[in-house]
Amino acid sequence: MLKTPTIVLNVKTYLEATGIKALEIAQTMDKISQETGVSMAIAVQATDITLCVNKVKIPVFAEHIDPISPGSHTGWTLPESVSEAGAIGTLINHSEHRLKLADIDSCINIAKKLNLDHIVCTNNVLTSKAAAAFKPNFIAVEPPELIGGDISVTTADPDIVSGSVDAVKKIDKNVKVLCGAGVKNGKDVAKSIELGADGVLLASGVVKANNKETVLRDLASGI
Amino acid sequence: MLKTPTIVLNVKTYLEATGIKALEIAQTMDKISQETGVSMAIAVQATDITLCVNKVKIPVFAEHIDPISPGSHTGWTLPESVSEAGAIGTLINHSEHRLKLADIDSCINIAKKLNLDHIVCTNNVLTSKAAAAFKPNFIAVEPPELIGGDISVTTADPDIVSGSVDAVKKIDKNVKVLCGAGVKNGKDVAKSIELGADGVLLASGVVKANNKETVLRDLASGI
Amino acid sequence: MLKTPTIVLNVKTYLEATGIKALEIAQTMDKISQETGVSMAIAVQATDITLCVNKVKIPVFAEHIDPISPGSHTGWTLPESVSEAGAIGTLINHSEHRLKLADIDSCINIAKKLNLDHIVCTNNVLTSKAAAAFKPNFIAVEPPELIGGDISVTTADPDIVSGSVDAVKKIDKNVKVLCGAGVKNGKDVAKSIELGADGVLLASGVVKANNKETVLRDLASGI
Amino acid sequence: MLKTPTIVLNVKTYLEATGIKALEIAQTMDKISQETGVSMAIAVQATDITLCVNKVKIPVFAEHIDPISPGSHTGWTLPESVSEAGAIGTLINHSEHRLKLADIDSCINIAKKLNLDHIVCTNNVLTSKAAAAFKPNFIAVEPPELIGGDISVTTADPDIVSGSVDAVKKIDKNVKVLCGAGVKNGKDVAKSIELGADGVLLASGVVKANNKETVLRDLASGI
Repeated sequence: MLKTPTIVLNVKTYLEATGIKALEIAQTMDKISQETGVSMAIAVQATDITLCVNKVKIPVFAEHIDPISPGSHTGWTLPESVSEAGAIGTLINHSEHRLKLADIDSCINIAKKLNLDHIVCTNNVLTSKAAAAFKPNFIAVEPPELIGGDISVTTADPDIVSGSVDAVKKIDKNVKVLCGAGVKNGKDVAKSIELGADGVLLASGVVKANNKETVLRDLASGI
Repeated sequence: MLKTPTIVLNVKTYLEATGIKALEIAQTMDKISQETGVSMAIAVQATDITLCVNKVKIPVFAEHIDPISPGSHTGWTLPESVSEAGAIGTLINHSEHRLKLADIDSCINIAKKLNLDHIVCTNNVLTSKAAAAFKPNFIAVEPPELIGGDISVTTADPDIVSGSVDAVKKIDKNVKVLCGAGVKNGKDVAKSIELGADGVLLASGVVKANNKETVLRDLASGI
Repeated sequence: MLKTPTIVLNVKTYLEATGIKALEIAQTMDKISQETGVSMAIAVQATDITLCVNKVKIPVFAEHIDPISPGSHTGWTLPESVSEAGAIGTLINHSEHRLKLADIDSCINIAKKLNLDHIVCTNNVLTSKAAAAFKPNFIAVEPPELIGGDISVTTADPDIVSGSVDAVKKIDKNVKVLCGAGVKNGKDVAKSIELGADGVLLASGVVKANNKETVLRDLASGI
Repeated sequence: MLKTPTIVLNVKTYLEATGIKALEIAQTMDKISQETGVSMAIAVQATDITLCVNKVKIPVFAEHIDPISPGSHTGWTLPESVSEAGAIGTLINHSEHRLKLADIDSCINIAKKLNLDHIVCTNNVLTSKAAAAFKPNFIAVEPPELIGGDISVTTADPDIVSGSVDAVKKIDKNVKVLCGAGVKNGKDVAKSIELGADGVLLASGVVKANNKETVLRDLASGI
């Protein structure tokens, strides 16, 4: 399982992180992770998993899996397909790709069967607590209104982080908790750990940065 | 643009056509296409596009694109991502992945901008006629109740094929029409062309066959 | 069928038009329609159909029907239920409640069988043309970016109105065309008819007005 | 709040329970409830709430609410609209109308604000436990594969009932638990209570019965 504390980058569907550019970011993370010893992972578009897995040692995640079994599901994301492409984990229920409650349960079950690490995204303390019932590897709490913004959740709403950690650990102390939304630098990362989280999930802070390496090194310094 | 008459294989999310197995089917098609001169294309899962494009000369399609622009759309299928991965075309609105009317319009516009061939799937004469308004490259009519079944649409409901061809050509004679559902052999392919179609779209007839090469050669014989 | 030219009010889910307040608006429209002879109809929430139909003579529409048959569809809008409640028509595919292409086809078929008038909403010239393939009673073109705004579609984008009228009539001259988005006064209504439309579909211009009767009388003056 | 133990009937979108026929069933339940003192409630289609509330004393529920605020949501089910129509409660997340995790949270919050009783439907022990995090009034566990079938959940899978009761009460002992799927007679009801549930949620067992009154009296005898 993904080592903690960790920094997980979700590159979403940014052009700055599509195809070869996703690989370049993965390679930068790979280099920094090896130099610093900080655990890092990258979640890329389904099309880019194969491209990345052969060239980097950091774990490559899918951004999403659909709650389907092999068969007639044209164009949906089969969990087995991301696993076979080389992803070792996946995001589930990202705020931009919400799932029904019963489907979160299904996706987590499938991920466990396929031995895929899984980070279930939630939006507040109560949904984090609810998700903990499924005993996922990770829960990543991200208030949607702060996603993509300039102020880190660790500053804007520290209680949602510590509150989620408390609520989740009360249900199952083995579930790890990440936090995200507005995370941009090492200070935000350090604060997340101080609040009890096992790391951060972030996106635009790195993907939209002019100098991604500088930002990534700064983030790593927070651990 | 994809040469017609053509045979387009959609491998869906079958395990028998995931990862390396998708590539093997693509390679078989590639061999037969080169030997026979019959135009063939394969639509594979997003994860498998990169794997296939470098190893075969036949056109590789995506099974789906989402009506989104680059940005914050975690886990959705960005049209630019399948294009950059090497797909030269895509299915749109497959019966297992239906889109809203306005989104079909958006997807076709995006496909045209990215120079992606696009096959818009429909379920009857009227939806084929409606789709023709958008002037897509291809419309593939497939009655959902016959998909995955034992009787070809060309036998079970030939009027839906000829009726769609007529309706579509009346709106725009440059739009090509494929037909699908239950297509399994060369006779079905020949009949589709006799009914005015420019080829077939099929899936289980090949993917679930024990000897895929035999089935593919038989299909090619129909052209 | 709804007499044209006509003014159709969609009250959406505004609190100012829920329950007894929907009825009050319907009664105001009823009075003005009778005094002026101008054809008017109101689309109300499913909960409010029964409340309104017994108290007004103007046609009461549903805001939506789902493409379902009677049976196990808890909480979805059964077309038979709005018909039995007394609605004589329904909106289909409103911009805030888009449907898949195949489902628009189904809804129109069901509406025809139940003898429900039906207004299929579209967002531009091409989707209007596509919808015309189904020969609905009405198509209402509304550019989403102008909905709820201050400038009427008849001023901001007159070509979308005349272009939709042309495209639709070329497919089937019996299909009536309404236009909407930003429509607020009699001048906008008059312009819509000048552009070839058979009336308007509007919402906030009336529902959010302090004096709804004044606005409705002004709208009626445009016909 | 709905008195327990209770029998809640969801009439879905059956024609046998649309319009005046929904009212007739409600009236039968009302009579039996008064005669026997057994707590009963009926969930009807949005169109039929007004029709029923004025004619019966048993609580009338909506079958669904959407996670929306008043405004521009054409054709969706505004919680305020069912409340104003007279419903005193609502189902949330029925197996035929699943919601995203974050939306279940929103719907429960809205229901609490509007003072609407709310029954959150779940499909197994873990989703019941997850839903309990939100402290709803009721959770109704129904294994989808048994819904509409001939064997009661209390016979086919008693552990899912007792397991859900245990899991839910461990999270919050004030949350009541109903069970459903295949429930048809008084023995099933009695067994549900023996398993720790506070009553049953059922549909076809009553709605599809030739003699609804006989079935309802039998069900009541189980309490």
